Amino acid sequence: MTDVFEVDRYDAAGRLGELEVPRAGVTVETPALLPVINPHLQTITPAQLESEFGAEILITNSYVLYGSEDLREPVEQQGLHDLLDFSGAVVTDSGSFQLAEYGQIDVTTEEILDFQHRIGSDIGTPVDIPTPPDVSREQAEGELATTQERLATAAEVETGDMLVNAPVQGSTYTDLREAAGAHAAQSGLDVFPVGAVVPMMNEYRYADLADVVAAAKRGLPESAPVHLFGAGHPMMFALAVALGCDLFDSAAYAIYARDDRYMTVRTTEHLEDLDYFPCSCPVCTSHTPAEVRSLDADERERLLSEHNLHVSYGELRTIKQAIRRGDLLELVEARARGHPAMLDGYRALLDHAAQLERTDPVSKDTFFHLSGESARRPEVVRHHQRLDRLDPRGDSVLLTEGNGHDDFDECWNLLPPFGPFPRELADGYPLTAETPERFEAPAYEAAAAGVARLVSAHPDTEFTLAHDDWPASALDALPERVDLWNLRGAE
Amino acid sequence: MTDVFEVDRYDAAGRLGELEVPRAGVTVETPALLPVINPHLQTITPAQLESEFGAEILITNSYVLYGSEDLREPVEQQGLHDLLDFSGAVVTDSGSFQLAEYGQIDVTTEEILDFQHRIGSDIGTPVDIPTPPDVSREQAEGELATTQERLATAAEVETGDMLVNAPVQGSTYTDLREAAGAHAAQSGLDVFPVGAVVPMMNEYRYADLADVVAAAKRGLPESAPVHLFGAGHPMMFALAVALGCDLFDSAAYAIYARDDRYMTVRTTEHLEDLDYFPCSCPVCTSHTPAEVRSLDADERERLLSEHNLHVSYGELRTIKQAIRRGDLLELVEARARGHPAMLDGYRALLDHAAQLERTDPVSKDTFFHLSGESARRPEVVRHHQRLDRLDPRGDSVLLTEGNGHDDFDECWNLLPPFGPFPRELADGYPLTAETPERFEAPAYEAAAAGVARLVSAHPDTEFTLAHDDWPASALDALPERVDLWNLRGAE
Ligand SMILES: [Mg+2]
Ligand SMILES: [Mg+2]
Ligand SMILES: [Zn+2]
Ligand SMILES: [Zn+2]
Repeated sequence: MTDVFEVDRYDAAGRLGELEVPRAGVTVETPALLPVINPHLQTITPAQLESEFGAEILITNSYVLYGSEDLREPVEQQGLHDLLDFSGAVVTDSGSFQLAEYGQIDVTTEEILDFQHRIGSDIGTPVDIPTPPDVSREQAEGELATTQERLATAAEVETGDMLVNAPVQGSTYTDLREAAGAHAAQSGLDVFPVGAVVPMMNEYRYADLADVVAAAKRGLPESAPVHLFGAGHPMMFALAVALGCDLFDSAAYAIYARDDRYMTVRTTEHLEDLDYFPCSCPVCTSHTPAEVRSLDADERERLLSEHNLHVSYGELRTIKQAIRRGDLLELVEARARGHPAMLDGYRALLDHAAQLERTDPVSKDTFFHLSGESARRPEVVRHHQRLDRLDPRGDSVLLTEGNGHDDFDECWNLLPPFGPFPRELADGYPLTAETPERFEAPAYEAAAAGVARLVSAHPDTEFTLAHDDWPASALDALPERVDLWNLRGAE
Repeated sequence: MTDVFEVDRYDAAGRLGELEVPRAGVTVETPALLPVINPHLQTITPAQLESEFGAEILITNSYVLYGSEDLREPVEQQGLHDLLDFSGAVVTDSGSFQLAEYGQIDVTTEEILDFQHRIGSDIGTPVDIPTPPDVSREQAEGELATTQERLATAAEVETGDMLVNAPVQGSTYTDLREAAGAHAAQSGLDVFPVGAVVPMMNEYRYADLADVVAAAKRGLPESAPVHLFGAGHPMMFALAVALGCDLFDSAAYAIYARDDRYMTVRTTEHLEDLDYFPCSCPVCTSHTPAEVRSLDADERERLLSEHNLHVSYGELRTIKQAIRRGDLLELVEARARGHPAMLDGYRALLDHAAQLERTDPVSKDTFFHLSGESARRPEVVRHHQRLDRLDPRGDSVLLTEGNGHDDFDECWNLLPPFGPFPRELADGYPLTAETPERFEAPAYEAAAAGVARLVSAHPDTEFTLAHDDWPASALDALPERVDLWNLRGAE
């Protein structure tokens, strides 16, 4: 791994970062979207992407150029930046996608990397093997070995100051994804795409996607820039960023538009089903769906592409602002309610809360408790770990959701989903949390787990728990020796 | 009540409707936003609201005009539409807000309604008493009696084809709000504002707000057009529409802008805290926060007002599209994750699920199960009611989350949160629901309640429940005589 990426600020495993792309002479702010440019068919030109949407980086397919009768010579003579008329960073894919789709391609890693270098690509890509989900372990291991040979080859090719992608494969085997991440980091290459996730996204397998990304991230160093290859739907950007992805590429904005499909951060709509545009972008504030339906195909495609780009870039700004403010997980909570499969994805992310906790800032904007899922956030994991280092003074301790009491040597506060804490911590993050009037069972259960952790670390201390009518599932999780006092019953 | 409002389509208690405003000669599509126009200070002109934002209706304060040295004569001569340069419907408020703020005003209901009529208002308002939350019952009853006298007076004033608002008061006493709704409907007036909710919104008391609106709606006829007076933050539009509100007015778009505050559908941000605009409106796609900060106060106010309006109108389009499609409650789910108090509001809405069920369509777009709260949606209430009318055939019945079994006379499906149903209903709404991989306890508990309802209606039938590892809280809710079979254990 090289030293081209710098993180400015974290939230969970999401981060605001800067990717230095030396050959382009630009620094790309991440998370970033790379619109996919089809060199033969530009509904939205790279110049428009740059001026209207603020695109700092895009991606195109070098294999298409390599095999193109009309474009190969021009691109070799002019170079990519001139051909595309784009001054930002240009990433080139290698034909791996075509390999996955059609079974074979006519180019080696050496040839395509050399070609990418010659045409002026800023970040090139070797020919890796994008192993689909659910194949046999044998196939996944075999194809990963091939991918890893290609990375070794790529590291040998003379590519000057062009950066090179080191894709992380391994199908749905998370141990292979982790090992692949660790191997890729040793390759001497620069940027780390998590590959072959498109089939998972097409089938709404967001939980599997989260597990695969978390696995790759465990293998990679924290500071590695990660590209989620082929991920272009804004509904999952927040989830993927929170897991630690920095770069996304979208062919979807154009492909969907060609098919009259309209993206939102919650779903995909078909133009014919829309009576109103659920959006405030420049396209949707100046047209009605009926007007757009009445246009010819080219104009319709252009407007829908523009909308799809506006919503995608808008979501990335929303995510960046959330990281800056420290409420990225609150945004993921909201996005998780777009589709049950997105909820599965959020729950899978929370399975990795301890992993996300490592980069999550100690203090952020107010913690919002928004659902039973909030009880599994990294901040709750951290508070429970912290309980191991907190010592109550005295022999008898009251842990209470209500007022203190003189009968005890010490009184601690008690707040679901965190659990108990000394009163002097009450003004610190996350214990200043905004909470609903009533919690869900998982929040009480998480608080009970915190109590159990504290109690078991202090075998000689007597604990009394004054709770506001906790459910049985929480009370059952407490050690027997904790005295219980129901504040609601005591009223 | 008069016959000026027609509902086209429901979703929960939300509806797409048409309000006929005869004096303006226009039909206003609802849900609708009424921007508040300060006649002395127009950052965004009514003409711009009409041409750029598609405003069909706005509201201004007749009491301000009545007391204005420089505007009273012009408005009496030109009329409101000319003075404001607006061809849509113009609603006039009466000074009740000033009454609430400053304790007294210098005008009677007769005088202000006559003035409103003379200046050409399309919908006028009597001087009601906006009783704040949490006052004594005596005060709430006394002030409600005064408001009701004013409505009777208003019904006597000669106002031609101007429509007249009949505000519904009653503070936080839901029985008073319900009685006030029933009384207002008898007044012979036309549009029904739920009044004095601004203090609740300012304190994020969205649960109380939901209870108050639901109570007023119980008193009003289903077909009454309802205005949520003073409600201008897009974060709560979806919730309020789902409860059955049709009209909103926003002074907030301008007041917030003056104070450098920036609205989103999830929250309010201060311009100085924004590094990125979390929005894709025409303002936010063509400026950065830093650029807007550097502008002079007037220009900043104009741009922030425009953004606030774009996000507000965009949210109304999102809501209208959701009603058209039948996923308004899915939208409310997502919006509920903006703030814990919004979650309280959503939960309070679900307390009224049986009330919302009465207008909820029998068939809509696929039901998305998105949280423990989804288990309390009107569709679940309706399915449980339907179980009273469904008769299993034979003496032994298997209710199963898995496959059928020949040992039983009949096999029914079993799906949280709905519960059991005959297989022939499996293709109908809502039983085609999209669900997450794993449910929360409330979904299993709701399914168990459905089972209990079916079982108790058939005392002579033997029931066996084949469940996928339900939690104790659900199994405990089943009648003792149900045989249990854990499909996970049987694997
Ligand atoms: Mg927060
Ligand atoms: Mg749906
Ligand atoms: Zn749009
Ligand atoms: Zn905006």
